[in-house]
Amino acid sequence: MQTTPHTTDTPSPESAAYAPTDRTIPTRSRERASYDHESVHAILDEAYVCHLGFVRDGAPVVLPTLYGRVGDRLYVHGSTGSRPLRMAGAAADRDPGLQVCLTVTHVDGLVLARSAFHHSINYRSVVVHGTAHQVTDPEEKRLALDALVDHVVPGRSADSRPADTKELAATAVLRLDLNEVSAKARTGGPNDEPEDMDLPHWAGVVPLRKGHDALIPSADLAPDITVPDYLIEL
Amino acid sequence: MQTTPHTTDTPSPESAAYAPTDRTIPTRSRERASYDHESVHAILDEAYVCHLGFVRDGAPVVLPTLYGRVGDRLYVHGSTGSRPLRMAGAAADRDPGLQVCLTVTHVDGLVLARSAFHHSINYRSVVVHGTAHQVTDPEEKRLALDALVDHVVPGRSADSRPADTKELAATAVLRLDLNEVSAKARTGGPNDEPEDMDLPHWAGVVPLRKGHDALIPSADLAPDITVPDYLIEL
Repeated sequence: MQTTPHTTDTPSPESAAYAPTDRTIPTRSRERASYDHESVHAILDEAYVCHLGFVRDGAPVVLPTLYGRVGDRLYVHGSTGSRPLRMAGAAADRDPGLQVCLTVTHVDGLVLARSAFHHSINYRSVVVHGTAHQVTDPEEKRLALDALVDHVVPGRSADSRPADTKELAATAVLRLDLNEVSAKARTGGPNDEPEDMDLPHWAGVVPLRKGHDALIPSADLAPDITVPDYLIEL
Repeated sequence: MQTTPHTTDTPSPESAAYAPTDRTIPTRSRERASYDHESVHAILDEAYVCHLGFVRDGAPVVLPTLYGRVGDRLYVHGSTGSRPLRMAGAAADRDPGLQVCLTVTHVDGLVLARSAFHHSINYRSVVVHGTAHQVTDPEEKRLALDALVDHVVPGRSADSRPADTKELAATAVLRLDLNEVSAKARTGGPNDEPEDMDLPHWAGVVPLRKGHDALIPSADLAPDITVPDYLIEL
């Protein structure tokens, strides 16, 4: 963990931490928050989906979606006909952007305390606030789509057919800069009250499993195609 | 899967499905959506955290949080000082409620297609739209807190110390009725284009692991406390 400067300056690309803001300083459990690039990026890179929130007709909408990261930029994608992508402004020359909150959460364990009140979960999460904009530059769009595929399985974009012109036209990509962002984590066992320690209830943590089970090849996969190294190492 | 009536009638408690609305009919992949109680409840009951979206100063906020279900009601809780719970209106006699979108997602597998475009994930998700209200009835509040603990580990609320008066006062509970809600799921292998079938790329699914690893008892757990049955069966 790096030092987290408690200022509202915009961080330069070289700085080690994102600057906290009113929205990224938690009202509770501030000791669980961190802002350093390393913590934020590690949590983002390990998850498969984010939950993307936006406002539609004054009401919140939260949808799960894939994403990719390139440095301090996140990318999400979807059909050009999908709601958030339409809302981000198809007319790129006057793109108003879309205010979003993008959240990623790992549930690492179930925390069982002697008291109901102190039950909890061990988790790591990242919350990003900002305005997402449509990516119109073809080069950046290709880079973003590669990042989206490589986010699911590192190394995979180089071992699949890239999008053709028609597929590129059907896909909209939104960019969200990592600027107003924080990580939060809980680790360890239950925090029971001293007077509860002699209660006869089991207390501890149920760690949740990570990783994957045996690969399932497509039924129509040619028998001479072997499992590539990047999947063996996954 | 049951028949999903395509109407906007409010479902009665006995009906087998939630009525689709403009917000719960997807703009794309409509065949992946379902509204029957069984599918919706099963997805909700299997997950540990939801992502709760609300609007604050005109901008979306998405936070991960625990939840519980009692029939057609969902409950979330938090400190009485936390933002969404304050926003839901502490003055219960004129509780304006809080417009929320509560989303739950399981990532079941990574879908690797021959083309970058057809990469996907297998998932199951539920999206609930509605207005959340503070629970002020003491009986309902206790029921909700039990449901929150039992959601994490079924049977656990009966084997822990219930909240005392001070803990109850420090905890706010929000109720969200399941009314405008849909489930969505993707299963199976990649959907490659016919002309891509002879490409030399591995294709198939990486199924993600479920379940948990060995329990970690608290370091200070009395040695005569054995692992309860509800944890052995977890």
